[in-house]
Amino acid sequence: MKRGRIAYAGAIYEAYPDAQGVRLADGRTCREDEVVWLAPIDTGTIFALGLNYAEHAKELQFGKQEEPLVFLKGPGSVVGHRGFTRRPSDVTFMHYECELAVVIGRPARNVPRADAMQHVAGYMIANDYAIRDYLENYYRPNLRVKNRDGGTVLGPWFVDAADVADVTQLELRTYVNGELRQRGSTCDLVTDIPALIEYLSGFMTLAPGDVILTGTPEGVADVVVGDEVVCEIDGLGRLVNTIASDADFGRV
Amino acid sequence: MKRGRIAYAGAIYEAYPDAQGVRLADGRTCREDEVVWLAPIDTGTIFALGLNYAEHAKELQFGKQEEPLVFLKGPGSVVGHRGFTRRPSDVTFMHYECELAVVIGRPARNVPRADAMQHVAGYMIANDYAIRDYLENYYRPNLRVKNRDGGTVLGPWFVDAADVADVTQLELRTYVNGELRQRGSTCDLVTDIPALIEYLSGFMTLAPGDVILTGTPEGVADVVVGDEVVCEIDGLGRLVNTIASDADFGRV
Repeated sequence: MKRGRIAYAGAIYEAYPDAQGVRLADGRTCREDEVVWLAPIDTGTIFALGLNYAEHAKELQFGKQEEPLVFLKGPGSVVGHRGFTRRPSDVTFMHYECELAVVIGRPARNVPRADAMQHVAGYMIANDYAIRDYLENYYRPNLRVKNRDGGTVLGPWFVDAADVADVTQLELRTYVNGELRQRGSTCDLVTDIPALIEYLSGFMTLAPGDVILTGTPEGVADVVVGDEVVCEIDGLGRLVNTIASDADFGRV
Repeated sequence: MKRGRIAYAGAIYEAYPDAQGVRLADGRTCREDEVVWLAPIDTGTIFALGLNYAEHAKELQFGKQEEPLVFLKGPGSVVGHRGFTRRPSDVTFMHYECELAVVIGRPARNVPRADAMQHVAGYMIANDYAIRDYLENYYRPNLRVKNRDGGTVLGPWFVDAADVADVTQLELRTYVNGELRQRGSTCDLVTDIPALIEYLSGFMTLAPGDVILTGTPEGVADVVVGDEVVCEIDGLGRLVNTIASDADFGRV
């Protein structure tokens, strides 16, 4: 099943796909323009992979990694479908990154590869934006690269693992203003999902709601204010968001 | 005011200091051995500073930083007062790190230094453990260093900012099995609290509940299974935890 979370008429609801827009659990249907999409789940720890597609690592001129390159993203960076991502005025490389997001469903600690997929609840599409101007080295810890407002777009749906026939063969596509700009397949993951769960659970406990952003394939490019960016993954839907100018947001 | 969160007799309560143990809002008092301490707040994004005391940077043989070295910690690493932190059997350097934790109280974006302290709700003691065996370089992104179960000890109290007379003059002390091992003062912070809020809010929005672990002074040393580690900060209390063997915890 696919399920999203929306704000509608004063409250927050689970929502399901419908030909006319979205459907609520009570049977009502809402037009897309009547609702505000939120991230499909309350996220726990958000792990993100760097350089987990070999061709993407090449385009950024990094060599083969020794082990998974994992960093964390904060909850403040998350927005849902149709959200805004802020572009600072003084940067040169603001890159979209279409990624398969894996959602943990059961606690996992010291889980071997063979059992790892039993701990996956389902999947989402993620657009894991990066401001590459601030990338200093291979270890990419710089929060200014990855942890900005709207820098983690999630949705529109959470899709149950049981509804994804073969997660190792999903095509990822990114369109900017309708033009196809990025294309890859989860078959090219350097460290695949079971290996990531084995690796992470080997030194910490993964909890339900934890999310692993599995990395992006080659084809990243700069986007500018006003661009509409659409990330698609086979069977998971179509995640839309727009680049806004950081300068249009004031001091808080 | 100082307030903690405890589990007691089947529920979770706010708790306050009392000569006999802790006091609940309804006036009941509980002995310390009847309650389980939890982290004093629900944490949002947890920021941690590397090398934010010059003498500590020297003891780890790192030079002066160009700008604040900030990384994130995940919510799964948090435990409260009297919690366990797991030591893997195959490591050589498991270091305690007594730190002042700053809790954000109001959203902050583009906040100048002069106004920054208005966004602080209060303070906690943190013990920000590190397994230095896995530290690969200056950028220290490695989750195995910093993001392990029980690797972020917080508490026992959240203390209102108004109750801390001068946050720039607090002594920090760590005792291992009763012996004083680490001592420093917040007057030696390389990047002070207003500067940290100005820096972070310059590229992202800080939210209420976000926590900044401001770094540790010199005096870190290895701790082993069974050690009782006590972190004290003037006016904030005394945070106790114990080193447990990772091998005693099974697969989940």
